[in-house]
Amino acid sequence: MEGAERVTGIDDLPIREELRGTSPYGAPQLDVDVHLNTNENPYPLPEPLVERIAERVRAAARGLNRYPDRDAVELRSQLAAYLSRTAGHPVTTSNVWAANGSNEVIQQLLQTFGGPGRTAIGFEPSYSMHGLIARGTGTGWISGPRREDFRIDVDAAARAIAEHRPDVVFITSPNNPTGTAVDADAVLALYEAAQAARPSLVVVDEAYVEFSHRPSLLPLIEGRPHLVVSRTMSKAFGAAGLRLGYLAADPAVVDAVQLVRLPYHLSAITQATALAALEHTDTLLGYVEQLKAERDRLVTELRDLGYEVTDSDANFVQFGRFEGAAGSHEAWQRILDRGILVRDNGVPGWLRVSAGTPAENDAFLDAVRELKKEQSA
Amino acid sequence: MEGAERVTGIDDLPIREELRGTSPYGAPQLDVDVHLNTNENPYPLPEPLVERIAERVRAAARGLNRYPDRDAVELRSQLAAYLSRTAGHPVTTSNVWAANGSNEVIQQLLQTFGGPGRTAIGFEPSYSMHGLIARGTGTGWISGPRREDFRIDVDAAARAIAEHRPDVVFITSPNNPTGTAVDADAVLALYEAAQAARPSLVVVDEAYVEFSHRPSLLPLIEGRPHLVVSRTMSKAFGAAGLRLGYLAADPAVVDAVQLVRLPYHLSAITQATALAALEHTDTLLGYVEQLKAERDRLVTELRDLGYEVTDSDANFVQFGRFEGAAGSHEAWQRILDRGILVRDNGVPGWLRVSAGTPAENDAFLDAVRELKKEQSA
Repeated sequence: MEGAERVTGIDDLPIREELRGTSPYGAPQLDVDVHLNTNENPYPLPEPLVERIAERVRAAARGLNRYPDRDAVELRSQLAAYLSRTAGHPVTTSNVWAANGSNEVIQQLLQTFGGPGRTAIGFEPSYSMHGLIARGTGTGWISGPRREDFRIDVDAAARAIAEHRPDVVFITSPNNPTGTAVDADAVLALYEAAQAARPSLVVVDEAYVEFSHRPSLLPLIEGRPHLVVSRTMSKAFGAAGLRLGYLAADPAVVDAVQLVRLPYHLSAITQATALAALEHTDTLLGYVEQLKAERDRLVTELRDLGYEVTDSDANFVQFGRFEGAAGSHEAWQRILDRGILVRDNGVPGWLRVSAGTPAENDAFLDAVRELKKEQSA
Repeated sequence: MEGAERVTGIDDLPIREELRGTSPYGAPQLDVDVHLNTNENPYPLPEPLVERIAERVRAAARGLNRYPDRDAVELRSQLAAYLSRTAGHPVTTSNVWAANGSNEVIQQLLQTFGGPGRTAIGFEPSYSMHGLIARGTGTGWISGPRREDFRIDVDAAARAIAEHRPDVVFITSPNNPTGTAVDADAVLALYEAAQAARPSLVVVDEAYVEFSHRPSLLPLIEGRPHLVVSRTMSKAFGAAGLRLGYLAADPAVVDAVQLVRLPYHLSAITQATALAALEHTDTLLGYVEQLKAERDRLVTELRDLGYEVTDSDANFVQFGRFEGAAGSHEAWQRILDRGILVRDNGVPGWLRVSAGTPAENDAFLDAVRELKKEQSA
């Protein structure tokens, strides 16, 4: 049918009404020199790990005619070992669940604890996929408040929970796109508010926690069966292309998501690749240290240039301020004109830049230095 | 927490009411010699393909720190080439969409065209995941009729469509677990009924079509924008462990599912592995021919032994009759006692056996020969 005129459009199809007029989620994919727009880890996997992946995948491919381990037990066991070693709290296989990216983890949680007739809340601006996956699962979405400085106002957030009685509460720490971490006391207060209101499931999205100045909130799951911590291998493990997300929670939560997970959702190839990456954790966490130093350098240098910068515990930095949404979009374009793609997340007056390699960050800093000069002139 | 007493069960969690008391979907995974219960392809991938997978995955792993191609263009292009070559109808990249198993394809279709306040129908017994994914997406499920001989009664099915006005209609051909193919005239009649009633999306699930005596129904998508054909690499490509499903339809349908797909749902590793397998299509389709011959042998020999056998166009055979659900379950256990795992799909009086290697099929036939002797004694 290639080249033929399209006679049918989406609007001619019997799709759900709430999908009409929407667009697929995703950052613009542009052909530029420096990509600092999707919080990817700029360091390719080390060659010994690449070889180990090939080796493990070769072995898995020899049994590829069979369905994969439906429960991904070996992988969950190794993820549990990683968390136990790094997150300050011992967990086991029964506490851990894995899926194709933390987005699928969140989708499974919403299919189990949200869905039609139920609601979820997030404190925005935050990771916009929480709201989009809510929509995709028929869960009502409540946009909760956040302070001007992008921290969570615990009292206001607790009041929103008491008022709306959501079934699921998302707390993103460090928060995307702002970089803001949430402390344990705030999470505990919101957990208590959520239990008093409903009780609700509280999901702490720690996609970026390895880059944080603060420890993981994982120890809070102890004795709190309605608290879930979600994680990903996309960022700290430098494996965005792998799509491996996971959660840690009470074993009952792990049992519950299995009621909705698609059977054999996690391929044998994905399991093999993730296991290989987990064997190289120390090397990969070394890159994390480099990225934290670069992140801190971006914060310092941007402030020295006169930009406002939100404190960041992630591998990215939110900077501004530009004059409203038009100003930040114009700044985005002018940085792009210099070959550097950053992210315009729709937070008026602010842009987000991922920490890249030192050379990439230098190129970015040169671009915003020029921008500052032009805008001051 | 290992070894600690579990204090929280699923029932203590605020899960959706309709999930209470349900169990995760999945065949029993038992440690026996001969697995003929999940319609897997018994032939491991040929060693040159295993090496090609390792090679392609190695290359993909070098860029694993970056997100994968969100639109999987190269993979969709090669899937389109495969369909164009084998299914009697030219399609292009814009007609094809891929996801983690045909289950995820179906989930995306139901999120787009079904969901809360909408319904889907299937003609049962059929692939039970259709109904389960409907439940998981909040779509109401209607169990449509099927004849005693497991063929679709087109008039009765059309009446059910007219009565219930479902938003999505599933037609599985060849049908699982019965092996029954549906002819083009029947699909066209049901498509017309579905368009008159609503209009609805009609999904023809062709997971097993490569094993059929009849051609694919793919050419029917021409001029029918509400008709979707779904496929998988799990069976004919001998890649159940890969989790790669796909669909062919009007480009508008492909656009529409992108409104609900999780961004970057298909990993770079999965895309690389599937592309490698598609390079070896001819070898893999050679195995399909062997399996078709073995399937036909199973049908013939089971009938010779005095069993009733449903005509099969798939890589499995439904046989009976046993005395009701208790009889088929008892026969399942006695075959299992001889080290052979077949499938009790809950169709009273019938069991399903996958076509294995000649040796596996011989072992199965020996077991049911003994069973027949015992039951005749």
